[in-house]
Amino acid sequence: MSPLDRTRLLEALALAEGSIGLTDPNPRVGCILGHEDGRVLGRGATQRAGEAHAEVMALRDAAAAGHDLRGATAWVTLEPCAHHGRTPPCCEALAAAGIARVVVAVGDPFPQVAGAGIARLRAAGVQVELADADIAAAARELNIGFFSRVERGRPWVRMKIAASLDGRTALANGASQWITGAEARTDGHAWRRRAGCVLTGIGTVLDDDPRLDVRLVATALQPMRAVVDSRLRTPPTARLLAPPGRCIVFAAVDDGAGAALRAAGAELRLRPGADGRVALDAVLADLAALGVNELHVEAGARLNAAWLASGRVDELLVYTAPLLLGEGRAMAALGPFDTLAQGLRFAFVGCQPVGADLRLLARPLAIPAAP
Amino acid sequence: MSPLDRTRLLEALALAEGSIGLTDPNPRVGCILGHEDGRVLGRGATQRAGEAHAEVMALRDAAAAGHDLRGATAWVTLEPCAHHGRTPPCCEALAAAGIARVVVAVGDPFPQVAGAGIARLRAAGVQVELADADIAAAARELNIGFFSRVERGRPWVRMKIAASLDGRTALANGASQWITGAEARTDGHAWRRRAGCVLTGIGTVLDDDPRLDVRLVATALQPMRAVVDSRLRTPPTARLLAPPGRCIVFAAVDDGAGAALRAAGAELRLRPGADGRVALDAVLADLAALGVNELHVEAGARLNAAWLASGRVDELLVYTAPLLLGEGRAMAALGPFDTLAQGLRFAFVGCQPVGADLRLLARPLAIPAAP
Repeated sequence: MSPLDRTRLLEALALAEGSIGLTDPNPRVGCILGHEDGRVLGRGATQRAGEAHAEVMALRDAAAAGHDLRGATAWVTLEPCAHHGRTPPCCEALAAAGIARVVVAVGDPFPQVAGAGIARLRAAGVQVELADADIAAAARELNIGFFSRVERGRPWVRMKIAASLDGRTALANGASQWITGAEARTDGHAWRRRAGCVLTGIGTVLDDDPRLDVRLVATALQPMRAVVDSRLRTPPTARLLAPPGRCIVFAAVDDGAGAALRAAGAELRLRPGADGRVALDAVLADLAALGVNELHVEAGARLNAAWLASGRVDELLVYTAPLLLGEGRAMAALGPFDTLAQGLRFAFVGCQPVGADLRLLARPLAIPAAP
Repeated sequence: MSPLDRTRLLEALALAEGSIGLTDPNPRVGCILGHEDGRVLGRGATQRAGEAHAEVMALRDAAAAGHDLRGATAWVTLEPCAHHGRTPPCCEALAAAGIARVVVAVGDPFPQVAGAGIARLRAAGVQVELADADIAAAARELNIGFFSRVERGRPWVRMKIAASLDGRTALANGASQWITGAEARTDGHAWRRRAGCVLTGIGTVLDDDPRLDVRLVATALQPMRAVVDSRLRTPPTARLLAPPGRCIVFAAVDDGAGAALRAAGAELRLRPGADGRVALDAVLADLAALGVNELHVEAGARLNAAWLASGRVDELLVYTAPLLLGEGRAMAALGPFDTLAQGLRFAFVGCQPVGADLRLLARPLAIPAAP
């Protein structure tokens, strides 16, 4: 991969990042068209589902400027699609425009693409090159939830926790507004925006009545909301039922409260587990079927512990405030363990100041660290 | 300050850092002698108390190489001393060697120096220049405990805590070996080495029987150890009584256990506070009188809470492991608070990976952050 290829792919990744909060359930993709001498002819990023993909946007951008694309190169952050979905295949559009070379950051895991896009381009006489491993990893990372849903059949589960330095998410009396600062809360909404669904537990609904929508940053789409509420105690007046879009209440039983919740706009799903609680794997399967790539969990200690015990948490997103609170609520109601080996081990993959707080990212040891 | 001045002072600071664990109770100081054209003639760092200061070491270094120092510049990280202590005044030695110019990173707060060193140099016809603010701050930071003891009459209190990401320092059953990794434990010993005294509480002595000496990194001096033990429950067999050097047991009362502790090598000090516990300010005054610049507190939740409540903690040194433990022991037995405003607010001044863990440094909001 040439230095120009690297530069263009990084620029295309930046374009793709601009599509966060817009393309779900489709992946975020960026495309740049240009010549090897450095001239850029067109730029594009994937639009809403059903609308144009990045390649088509870049082709339109070049056409609007009157550029001839014959012999040009396309740099794309994901393998161009080869199938007729809601839009025609991008690999055909690139070949038809006379693109001579395509540099692909990472292959598309989607079964109907998965190498077929590259094969079709090559069959049309287009030279195709794959990016170096670090660029491929960054491209995968940008669509970590899309890859998770396609490859594993479940969303990428990100658990967000805001806590004091001594690990308290609230005082013993429940007070939690605010432990972290405004910058961290805004950053938290930027992470919500990445998600196809923001999920909480009935305890948090009853304690805090959160809206769980994206307010502090701009977004084209609002993630759906979901509540894990085994015994259907969500009040029909709960604020998270109100924002535009879906709100799913996952329950183990419906003793009659479901009708009022449905009337209030909730979508009810009975997913009882063997333990009488909601089966979290069934929740994940449902959400994957609904096109949720990244699941953003913002819950209390009990539901956090259930998710952690399920082994389905792919990432911890922890905002740590430089604050000591002493007694208070825990991050997760785990244990008591007899030995430290029973603790849940992660690896830090990121640490960044956000205002006065720190944002820590950690992933289970078994999952490769982010680049 | 010229670029060369900056370079030389940074080199001198690196020399001074090499004196950590050697010079207490004296400050760590580095000195470089050379010409403005870039030639270096001598280098030195302060030795053990009573032995040569950095300037004298650098003069000896230059003399050993046969260099003529007339017209040369001295870069020193702390104002040269002007008084006859256990060694003759460095400012006289510099002037006598023919040094024409001295660049000083930061003034010495010690009352018998405090500007007198600079004044004497100038009186001897030596040009003296002070460093830019960032270099001055770094020089002060290197001797933060010395400045604290001289300016405030008490050591710099650094509280070291090793905890899981959810703030647990041990399981409910007390198991704590090991939450953090080997690299963090070694790093913790490097911070112990900085200290004139490592202090713990009777709870930790009874639970863990720690040695509290510096073992995992090399050191010329061992810090003294201290225990806050109101009712003199330290067993005469406690391991921290054994390492070479002083071990002070601070108690509120001696109901008869003191004799055996003294026989075991402990130095007993009765410092009762109004609440029947040990008066922590009296502990600080004692340790300052003993020449302790940095006090390294490694204690459990109860003593940590007492120190924090006293308002005397200058720095938190927290090793955070990427581990969730759920139930377990807290960092500090504070609260329960009624409002978040009662929490103890700090500011993060550092965050660095150490092995698989993170090392976080935080200081009370009222104290200026490190550079």
